[in-house]
Amino acid sequence: MSSDDSAPSQRVTVRRMPDRGSYDSDTVNSILDEGLMAHVGLVTAEGPVVIPMIYGREDQTLYLHGSPASRLLRDGRSAQLCVTVSLIDGLVVARSLMHHSMNYRSVVLMGEASIVDDFDEKTRALDVISDHVIPGRVEATRPHHDKEVKGTLVLSMAISEASSKIRTGQPIDDEEDYLLDTWAGVLPLGIKVGEPIPDPQLKDGIATPEHIANWSR
Amino acid sequence: MSSDDSAPSQRVTVRRMPDRGSYDSDTVNSILDEGLMAHVGLVTAEGPVVIPMIYGREDQTLYLHGSPASRLLRDGRSAQLCVTVSLIDGLVVARSLMHHSMNYRSVVLMGEASIVDDFDEKTRALDVISDHVIPGRVEATRPHHDKEVKGTLVLSMAISEASSKIRTGQPIDDEEDYLLDTWAGVLPLGIKVGEPIPDPQLKDGIATPEHIANWSR
Repeated sequence: MSSDDSAPSQRVTVRRMPDRGSYDSDTVNSILDEGLMAHVGLVTAEGPVVIPMIYGREDQTLYLHGSPASRLLRDGRSAQLCVTVSLIDGLVVARSLMHHSMNYRSVVLMGEASIVDDFDEKTRALDVISDHVIPGRVEATRPHHDKEVKGTLVLSMAISEASSKIRTGQPIDDEEDYLLDTWAGVLPLGIKVGEPIPDPQLKDGIATPEHIANWSR
Repeated sequence: MSSDDSAPSQRVTVRRMPDRGSYDSDTVNSILDEGLMAHVGLVTAEGPVVIPMIYGREDQTLYLHGSPASRLLRDGRSAQLCVTVSLIDGLVVARSLMHHSMNYRSVVLMGEASIVDDFDEKTRALDVISDHVIPGRVEATRPHHDKEVKGTLVLSMAISEASSKIRTGQPIDDEEDYLLDTWAGVLPLGIKVGEPIPDPQLKDGIATPEHIANWSR
């Protein structure tokens, strides 16, 4: 995150629609905290690769976890990554196809990610990621076994170069198109949460806990 | 898309959890058709960049559109891209933090994207993208003005190297953890569609059309 008194680096400067861009730390963090999945890009010998990963944030550190994590680091213990988190808030329905759009919030975060080696930090990072996805889950589950922590790959990345981009509101049509008999507006989208499906192997008499029954985003 | 009688290239081979990977064309296409947003990765002089973009599919061609499209091509008329589309179907809640997961479907597509120059193909591509996001929208709106088509950047990419990855079902816990009094199961997630919000500038007497009122994914 660029601090307020320094200009954002050229790499994260929002180039298109700069009025939609922001480097404000609170905005970046709120988007990261609401997202569930990050799309992580890296450069390989064969070209760019983008992998969906689970993550969590603690202060100005992003922790990444996911089965393909090792692929990100096959050539070393750190890698230059771009982490993008996007939230779709609605479809923007305009009077011409050209002015259709989406209401969205996104963060693009760049930097070097490296393997978390320290056992205590890695344990905490796994808890941060778990509680990011399901707040309250860490408290409801048994502690990690040491071998679980040791056998898991977690990456850490400083949130130092980040920008957010947000679109809200109604379509902006060409002046003459407002005379058309074409419907226009916004179709709001969000995350639909279904009824929890208990594991068929669940022991009898275990009620659905509140952090699952009331989960929302 | 690798055909059935040829092995997938090394680049798109699913390396982790290979049982979850698939190169089946119908599976790839169904995931692409359900997604709304692609995360597009490319290599720049400063490192990897991942940008959210709108897209549409026609047969084995993917069309990409979005305001940052020009950034993808600032060094030429084509670029090596990785296009990833991910759908989150649910949270997998296990008895240990380590076995938590998500049910998801994702496609990773690699190849060279190039600018669509032909006016007719570009017009059709814009319609493909519009009808991908909102089926029926093209028919409901006025035709493109020529200058709109000319002023828009559309990229085309052959769906030749693609793989999908899918996780479904309940958590798989360690044998001894099934004895714990910890709730486990799946919390299904999907796309919540709100009530359409008409543009305040909408002319009187225009009803919400069916393709908006009944939109779902």
